[in-house]
Amino acid sequence: MPAQPVLIDGKWRPAAAKSTFQADNPTTGAPLAEIYPVSGFDDCEAALTAATAAAIQLRNTPAETLAAFLEKFAERIERRAAELVETAHAETGLPKQPRLADVELPRTTNQLRQAAAAAREGSWMLPVIDTKLNIRSCLEPVGPVCVFGPNNFPFAFNSVAGGDFAAAIAAGNPVIAKGNTSHPATTRLLAEEAHAAAQEAGLPPATVQMIYRTSHADGARLVADPRVGATAYTGSRAAGLTLKAAADAAGKPIYLELSSVNPVLVLPGALAERGDKIAEEFTGSCLMGAGQFCTNPGMVLLLAGATTDAFIESIAGRFRAATAGTLLSAGVERTLNENVGKLARAGAEIMVGGAPDKSGGYRYANTLLRVTGQKFLADPEKLQTEAFGNASLVVIAKDADEATEVLDSLEGNLTGCVYSDTRGGDDQLYTRLASHLRPKVGRLLNDKMPTGVAVSPAMNHGGPYPATGHAGFTAVGIPASMRRFGALACYDGVRPNRLPAILANQNPGGRAWRTIDGVWTQGDVAI
Amino acid sequence: MPAQPVLIDGKWRPAAAKSTFQADNPTTGAPLAEIYPVSGFDDCEAALTAATAAAIQLRNTPAETLAAFLEKFAERIERRAAELVETAHAETGLPKQPRLADVELPRTTNQLRQAAAAAREGSWMLPVIDTKLNIRSCLEPVGPVCVFGPNNFPFAFNSVAGGDFAAAIAAGNPVIAKGNTSHPATTRLLAEEAHAAAQEAGLPPATVQMIYRTSHADGARLVADPRVGATAYTGSRAAGLTLKAAADAAGKPIYLELSSVNPVLVLPGALAERGDKIAEEFTGSCLMGAGQFCTNPGMVLLLAGATTDAFIESIAGRFRAATAGTLLSAGVERTLNENVGKLARAGAEIMVGGAPDKSGGYRYANTLLRVTGQKFLADPEKLQTEAFGNASLVVIAKDADEATEVLDSLEGNLTGCVYSDTRGGDDQLYTRLASHLRPKVGRLLNDKMPTGVAVSPAMNHGGPYPATGHAGFTAVGIPASMRRFGALACYDGVRPNRLPAILANQNPGGRAWRTIDGVWTQGDVAI
Repeated sequence: MPAQPVLIDGKWRPAAAKSTFQADNPTTGAPLAEIYPVSGFDDCEAALTAATAAAIQLRNTPAETLAAFLEKFAERIERRAAELVETAHAETGLPKQPRLADVELPRTTNQLRQAAAAAREGSWMLPVIDTKLNIRSCLEPVGPVCVFGPNNFPFAFNSVAGGDFAAAIAAGNPVIAKGNTSHPATTRLLAEEAHAAAQEAGLPPATVQMIYRTSHADGARLVADPRVGATAYTGSRAAGLTLKAAADAAGKPIYLELSSVNPVLVLPGALAERGDKIAEEFTGSCLMGAGQFCTNPGMVLLLAGATTDAFIESIAGRFRAATAGTLLSAGVERTLNENVGKLARAGAEIMVGGAPDKSGGYRYANTLLRVTGQKFLADPEKLQTEAFGNASLVVIAKDADEATEVLDSLEGNLTGCVYSDTRGGDDQLYTRLASHLRPKVGRLLNDKMPTGVAVSPAMNHGGPYPATGHAGFTAVGIPASMRRFGALACYDGVRPNRLPAILANQNPGGRAWRTIDGVWTQGDVAI
Repeated sequence: MPAQPVLIDGKWRPAAAKSTFQADNPTTGAPLAEIYPVSGFDDCEAALTAATAAAIQLRNTPAETLAAFLEKFAERIERRAAELVETAHAETGLPKQPRLADVELPRTTNQLRQAAAAAREGSWMLPVIDTKLNIRSCLEPVGPVCVFGPNNFPFAFNSVAGGDFAAAIAAGNPVIAKGNTSHPATTRLLAEEAHAAAQEAGLPPATVQMIYRTSHADGARLVADPRVGATAYTGSRAAGLTLKAAADAAGKPIYLELSSVNPVLVLPGALAERGDKIAEEFTGSCLMGAGQFCTNPGMVLLLAGATTDAFIESIAGRFRAATAGTLLSAGVERTLNENVGKLARAGAEIMVGGAPDKSGGYRYANTLLRVTGQKFLADPEKLQTEAFGNASLVVIAKDADEATEVLDSLEGNLTGCVYSDTRGGDDQLYTRLASHLRPKVGRLLNDKMPTGVAVSPAMNHGGPYPATGHAGFTAVGIPASMRRFGALACYDGVRPNRLPAILANQNPGGRAWRTIDGVWTQGDVAI
């Protein structure tokens, strides 16, 4: 069987392959039939050249055309939903229903449609007009965007259909997608539909390009190439930081979404008031999708006491009782086992699980670990290792002072949650602890678990390093996520007929919010 | 004479000095009397510890207090204007009038007042409220900001009074200022006034801290410290990129404003229509302040022809006739000479100047170089070396194709200008060339020189790498420049009494523009 072709410059063509790979079925561990190429840099080179030309054409393409493409693509995904769900299930082991068919696929098409609406509307560009000095500025497309998708969302974060893709395209940039190795067939189907939709919409041929895999060295060379505008990467910390080093050295923006333990604080009043309900919520959030979420609650911080002991026992019982989910790949199982071992060697006690589950496919026993605040503080770096999967670490601080120290020792995280009682008994403690948690996390939650990441304009799926590469940006939430793929462009004394439409006196379409002399308005410049 | 004290944690105290230095008077070359310390890392360590505590306090400080500080500081600068102007003149050689007293000092106090107004108003935080999901987000202070000021604006870009300082403070962050080595006394006076104003306003003692100088290694260690929120640096490319590498490796944002040759295109119709006027404008822009501006027009791109030859002769005559200004330091003179030599060795012909001016102090003859487009394209990297000072390179392309190639070969720049005729004769050429220039520059100008950088909300004093470190941000223009010093903070389901004021249902003060369910408004959330 020949290796699958790659999508470069508007054509499906054989890769300049260095080698090949196959995905496997995590439910059985058996390899899947199709063979995929590991591209050499020649493929990257061809994609970069084509993307450079496409980027210039896209600067003069109406936003309406971009929006039409995104909507056609969403429709095509819906028409091919059954095949996509089957394929993604075979490659990831994620449940077909509700997860893939009823949650992730609609989320993906919703993101594409929100991005279409944002492109049409134009406010994402943050247009600013100073009429007195005739200086005008806005964000404009940054240039070709490389997207590296993660293993855990085969649709919604797919490099050729997910949130980064949608945001980069809606901001007017061509995308060079690097598929995730664990679900190449899903990526191929999505790329086919993206390509067809781009042709229908009349976009430049190289607007959407896709390769499956490269060597690490070629990936680093790709993101540092002078022709690249920016890169978006979601995945492991090690690979992400390697790409970051290459991009940084070349002065290229790279937006990372890396590991995070997502601390959850449950205050004593909340435990007393509704400990069982919280234990249930926590277990659900931690074990859903076998815990394979960026925002999985990998750490629970509690204050020592009898209620706390009972709460931990309650969680432990639920972890024991629940069936372990299927993991995405052999690599996830191996890394989970390594990281649980690392936590245990650093002083955490394994209460539940701690070993692979041999009941079939890639599985790991639901795992709960426990450590005192004092021990945590003796080696906070190792004890905040992310164990990606169905595992979590309970940290028991002896008092509020120690809890504060634990929070201060945390690295940057995507989220942090605080559960407190509803009658105000925890309020003083909340004020104190939340002020230490806030600067460590991108999103602070009250009384809910972090695993839901709503596609809301107010969402922040980001946070301080090393959760991401820049705490000013979010990977989810339109239009904010689009701003990662814009460069600030100023027009100083530029003649009216030469201004981009969004900066003209007349508001094109009348929908974009613009700041005119300090006032946000959808109106025109008064003449 | 003992070395001057540094300002750490609210106290003027002796530095933990490794050595000392003196500034000199560029007009005479004679050293100035005062002795300044080169701080060891112990001073940085103390400043970082104090700044960390101040950052926590500042998060709970009303914006009104920050605004009051900035305004009091501006008043104090005005009260001490005569001494500041004398001191800055002695240290920089810049003319007292109009430059220092009538242009730069008012610009500085204007920036401080604009920053105060922006802090009070709150729109810089880009508040977003999703009422349906009760998710809210905004930019919040990023943490202690290190500011490294340049040599060429002793007031307006001073690390303890200039645009970066004002933006970082107005965004709610403490500043650790690293003074520029060439004007320590000016920095000392400004720091004295900043310190006194901070005390009057009741800000935490470590809100404003200042050291004069460190080793390069200690500077790199400072910007990479885990306690730092972000760094702003304006200065030479080599030093800036060293700091960038250190900050990048630690995942710390660093905003750089580095070198730029600021290409100016004069199209044939404009030359024919008003060549003399443009030659006059160009000469003024290029030689003003001895050319020591980030936005100095260091390159002029022309199309070959008789009118072009006459235009170049006209500029050459003006360069010969004008008195060479005083340079900021011996180092600027030496580097200018080296870079002119580098341009000449790469194939540029020296038409005027090209050697130090021996008439007194640090001076260099006004210098004009010339090269063909063909030669430029043979070594574009060397031929776009920035010769910081009163020097410029004319590039003569044989036709529009070659001019396009020259533009495509340019690195990122802060600005790019196009002069065209007023009757439309150049319009086709404009469309073609501007589309290649636009992605290379942060600010595109028509029919004016780039040296004026208005403090406008629409300004972009930024651009693609290596002109800056991130093309999404500007160093001048409020409120946009403040966003560099914010981290995106999301509140998901957070109880109303725990929200920051800017995200509450009621708009605090009623002045901030917020996006509520997709609509920009100064109103409250409808309940």
